[in-house]
Amino acid sequence: MKVLKESGFNAEKIVENGNKFLTANGYLGYRGTLDEFTKEECVGLNVAGVYDGVKGKWRETINVFNPFYLVAQADNIPLAARGENVLSHEISLDISKGLFDRKTTFNVNGATVTLECQRFVNAAEKTNLCSRAIISADRDMILTLKVGVDTDIWELNGPHFKDVKTEIGGNRIIACGVTQELGYSVKVYCDYSSPVEEFSGGFGIIKADIKKDEKFVLDRVAHVLLGKEESKFDKYDSAYKAHVNEWKRLWSAARIEIKDDDRAQFALDYSIYHLLILAPKGEYSIAARGLSGQTYKGAVFWDTEIFMLPFFLGTLPDCAKNLIKYRINTLPQARKKAREYGYGGAFYAWESQNGYDACSDFNVTDVFTHRPVRTYFKDKQIHISADVAYAILNYYNHTGDDELMFSGGLETILECAEFARTYSYYNHIKNRYELLDVIGPDEYHERVNNNTYTNYMFYLTAKRGVELAEKYACAYPERFKAVLGKLPENIIENLKNWLQKLYLPQPDANGVIEQFDGYFKLEDVGVEEVRSRLVHPNEYWGGSGGVATATRVIKQADVIMLFNLYPDLFSKEIQRANYDFYLPYTEHGSSLSHCAYALTACRTGDKSGAYKAFLDSAEIDLRGGGKQWAGEIYIGGTHPAASGGAWMTAVFGFGYRHKET
Amino acid sequence: MKVLKESGFNAEKIVENGNKFLTANGYLGYRGTLDEFTKEECVGLNVAGVYDGVKGKWRETINVFNPFYLVAQADNIPLAARGENVLSHEISLDISKGLFDRKTTFNVNGATVTLECQRFVNAAEKTNLCSRAIISADRDMILTLKVGVDTDIWELNGPHFKDVKTEIGGNRIIACGVTQELGYSVKVYCDYSSPVEEFSGGFGIIKADIKKDEKFVLDRVAHVLLGKEESKFDKYDSAYKAHVNEWKRLWSAARIEIKDDDRAQFALDYSIYHLLILAPKGEYSIAARGLSGQTYKGAVFWDTEIFMLPFFLGTLPDCAKNLIKYRINTLPQARKKAREYGYGGAFYAWESQNGYDACSDFNVTDVFTHRPVRTYFKDKQIHISADVAYAILNYYNHTGDDELMFSGGLETILECAEFARTYSYYNHIKNRYELLDVIGPDEYHERVNNNTYTNYMFYLTAKRGVELAEKYACAYPERFKAVLGKLPENIIENLKNWLQKLYLPQPDANGVIEQFDGYFKLEDVGVEEVRSRLVHPNEYWGGSGGVATATRVIKQADVIMLFNLYPDLFSKEIQRANYDFYLPYTEHGSSLSHCAYALTACRTGDKSGAYKAFLDSAEIDLRGGGKQWAGEIYIGGTHPAASGGAWMTAVFGFGYRHKET
Repeated sequence: MKVLKESGFNAEKIVENGNKFLTANGYLGYRGTLDEFTKEECVGLNVAGVYDGVKGKWRETINVFNPFYLVAQADNIPLAARGENVLSHEISLDISKGLFDRKTTFNVNGATVTLECQRFVNAAEKTNLCSRAIISADRDMILTLKVGVDTDIWELNGPHFKDVKTEIGGNRIIACGVTQELGYSVKVYCDYSSPVEEFSGGFGIIKADIKKDEKFVLDRVAHVLLGKEESKFDKYDSAYKAHVNEWKRLWSAARIEIKDDDRAQFALDYSIYHLLILAPKGEYSIAARGLSGQTYKGAVFWDTEIFMLPFFLGTLPDCAKNLIKYRINTLPQARKKAREYGYGGAFYAWESQNGYDACSDFNVTDVFTHRPVRTYFKDKQIHISADVAYAILNYYNHTGDDELMFSGGLETILECAEFARTYSYYNHIKNRYELLDVIGPDEYHERVNNNTYTNYMFYLTAKRGVELAEKYACAYPERFKAVLGKLPENIIENLKNWLQKLYLPQPDANGVIEQFDGYFKLEDVGVEEVRSRLVHPNEYWGGSGGVATATRVIKQADVIMLFNLYPDLFSKEIQRANYDFYLPYTEHGSSLSHCAYALTACRTGDKSGAYKAFLDSAEIDLRGGGKQWAGEIYIGGTHPAASGGAWMTAVFGFGYRHKET
Repeated sequence: MKVLKESGFNAEKIVENGNKFLTANGYLGYRGTLDEFTKEECVGLNVAGVYDGVKGKWRETINVFNPFYLVAQADNIPLAARGENVLSHEISLDISKGLFDRKTTFNVNGATVTLECQRFVNAAEKTNLCSRAIISADRDMILTLKVGVDTDIWELNGPHFKDVKTEIGGNRIIACGVTQELGYSVKVYCDYSSPVEEFSGGFGIIKADIKKDEKFVLDRVAHVLLGKEESKFDKYDSAYKAHVNEWKRLWSAARIEIKDDDRAQFALDYSIYHLLILAPKGEYSIAARGLSGQTYKGAVFWDTEIFMLPFFLGTLPDCAKNLIKYRINTLPQARKKAREYGYGGAFYAWESQNGYDACSDFNVTDVFTHRPVRTYFKDKQIHISADVAYAILNYYNHTGDDELMFSGGLETILECAEFARTYSYYNHIKNRYELLDVIGPDEYHERVNNNTYTNYMFYLTAKRGVELAEKYACAYPERFKAVLGKLPENIIENLKNWLQKLYLPQPDANGVIEQFDGYFKLEDVGVEEVRSRLVHPNEYWGGSGGVATATRVIKQADVIMLFNLYPDLFSKEIQRANYDFYLPYTEHGSSLSHCAYALTACRTGDKSGAYKAFLDSAEIDLRGGGKQWAGEIYIGGTHPAASGGAWMTAVFGFGYRHKET
């Protein structure tokens, strides 16, 4: 498998490379930064599913203390990639083993010194991460290494820790702190293979003399422990062995070979790597920017259920089960959210932090007034509940796991349908139920009526939920009765009646399905025309004054997305008509969009369009270059949903085509 | 009656005085400008109900050619109020007779020359307006007067005329043109009492020698004729006599005497003047800025039905009938608009130009991006249909005019109710009809559900409409049957069923009725706090990013307005609770707001609040000083709805209180 490499040092690529060269083990993520870096260079050791909120700021996942801080000096000359004495510099990521490597050579008073550091986040142990530094020189040299657990960390909405303390015990440096909001005690410690002296302020000194061409090796074995957690590894070599073995297992489950296309092969390998490093090691889920940092609050979006879950279902079903359990476990919060808005059933969090909806009513800041703008993602993007139900049904289709269905699965599906039923209004003139005042996947058009994606997704949620209920009523009457007991009275009957009359938009004479009521009446202009109307490059395209609002230009696949989830709902001709219609209006302002078109392109025969969209999705984090900052807000990170979309395109798109021909 | 005067010339007040000293006769309006002024000083001769649209610009009423252009010279020295040789200058408006007067004295090479011009728009003849200029000096003097019909006119969204020609015939100068859009031929001519020489480009010269202390008098009798219209007056004195007689009649119908309060007396007189000068002379209606210009496109808003009609009902019922007929006559367009949006019944134009809805979907320009903002006045401010129906019912209550009810009145009322019925959705969970996605009188909160004003207004429209229908079914079965034949099948039955279940928001434990679903959950801040958040003084407060949007701050009376239209619907305690609750949140960003609070203040016992709000409403055009320009758009003009509100406060507010005590 190709190793990702980058030679030479470019300060402007530090943030981007932090994402591109990310290592992670599904629980801890360590950004692709260098040993001598600090928060200035966005060093981050991100933890999945552990959130903290500081008053007046966004609640987000925590970044913990950095155990791998290291600044080496040779004969009192610093060995740093930013230095003027650098002869060569290279970083690499071996995605076959989840290994990050940096190698830098320096001119130290005429001699050449080489600093090499390997690093991995242990795939075999969720709390462990290790690094090995190797220093050599072409003459005798005195080395001084400043090492320690850096507690002055990069945080977007921190500080998240109080009572921060560092201490030393033997060759172990330990940093402890307590999260502000929920009082989690977090301990990060690092064992050094050489004696640490002069400990002060979290940092110590390791000294060594090396002879010409001799290698000085420093192993660091670090752990991130919450509460009473313990960790078993204490040696680099044994940790490395377990890690590499686990990666073998992961790739054996997930590798896909592509014939005669190195570019596509690597793009797909790299995409799969980014999914494998997020495979949850417990009943938690995956954030929209994975473990690359705190962007989007570390919250879980529909990205996981709709764009990533299929990969795990196809490769690591236990991980898929964890993702599903996460949603089932947060059913109580989804019920609570529904009640708060005056509805029945379960209204899942748009930005889930263990069920809590982290989404703000003001999710956008106006670039002109610097004031928050009222957005409706939280209260109107109701399709999230249909997406969750779809995921559970998808899981069930793959696994036939009745146990999970009786442990909340069925209950969740039916409650998601019930939510939509109570959200709907009856159009007494047209004699049908309608879903009014929603936002579809295309967020640029707010508060629309009868969004095709939303209506169909809830229709099928209710239909499949009722069918499953009726199957279970026959097969397991007692267990089914127990589930019914947790649900509103007459739910099955009510849903069946509702299904009879729920409005489902139909294709027009050209085969095109209107994205929502009135979409066809919007201004008929393309993406570039709309882009040219921007006054400020970071303007929000939606909202009442956005450039896209009154036009047909959409942020991302919307009607098209429905086809990907239910490929047999409409004929290929209809799908192609919609693909051809909507593509020119699609900005792809979301990383979820390209793969959605790629999949439909595959099904409907646009080979070249499919290939291009596949690469756009698969290479998104390889290419980088996307927006890392919106004004003063960091919005960078990896795009695992696009990685999942690339995988789906390969398997369900190209794979399916292949089978067919 | 006090005469409004202003001494001294101040160039900065030219535009404001144009409104403040307006003369009009319900059809033609001539701004309070000076004879020597041109379009630079916003001279305007506005015509009621005649619209023209130029491609790509807003359609608006026309300003026609100015017959009263006059620049005098004495011994070759110009006599202009802007000149450095001005000794004194005064303008005045005698509201008892609708007479505008200007008197300016000049130093002409050491001598004193006086220029006086009287002007009126003939109340007794809709097409006629007259002016008399008097010039005298304290030594012999040679006068040269440049006079003519100025075709280079002030237009906001013009040019509205093509084929413009001027000609002279005897002592008559004539300007003709044809409107761009509908091809109306417009002729403006002026007869001069002295010979006109040297005619060129629309202007001629009148020469005269005056002796010391002798007066030179020039009469101008002008006419504005559309199509084949004719005009009967040709002498200043006879026109003046008819005009003054008509004003006697008007005031005898409308005067209200206030005891021991000169300020309130004049403010009310002045308000009534501004209503009398708008009394329509045919089946047309009154624009929101009256005849003061083209602001708001010269369109008719709910202002007329709700704020002005009561005055005419109480003083000049024939004019009230004209206003009602205007809406009945435009029922076909209201039906058409309803169909265009997918509804039944009649959806009246938010900005009516003889029934055509001139309201744009983009009625606001963002001050930061200079792009249009999608606004919802046209498609969501549905209460306009309830307002129209209320006005017809109000007219009927005053007049008992069954003929009008059978000539479209009843049909219109029922169609307005039917519109709301078809607009409503059935909430199948709460078993009630709801009016979703509307804008109430408070326009800062867009697309709200169950706006109290809107729901009650339509409820009462339907209820009173059905009651009237049932009365007529008994009393005039044949005539009623004929009306029913023009209406949708089963309309009465349908409305009766709908009324059973239409949701009517009720007072909460504190007696306060929520303005719309969720209003109480908005940020609880007052007007000044919200104002302090403005970044640009001309920002729109509503829309998705507006300062008021996510707060309780409202543009104008909303719930309170309902109480004024139906004072017996809720107890005085409830009305007071709402008055106290909503007043601190009310920006009074509309001139309709003060009088609404004044009326409720009268009913609920806040004497001082009522008096202050009455003066705020009655003196609005006297005080001036309001915004005349929004960016590059002229938004100035008179505020006849506020004048009507002042009248209502005097009559229904203070008058009613007086009766009571």
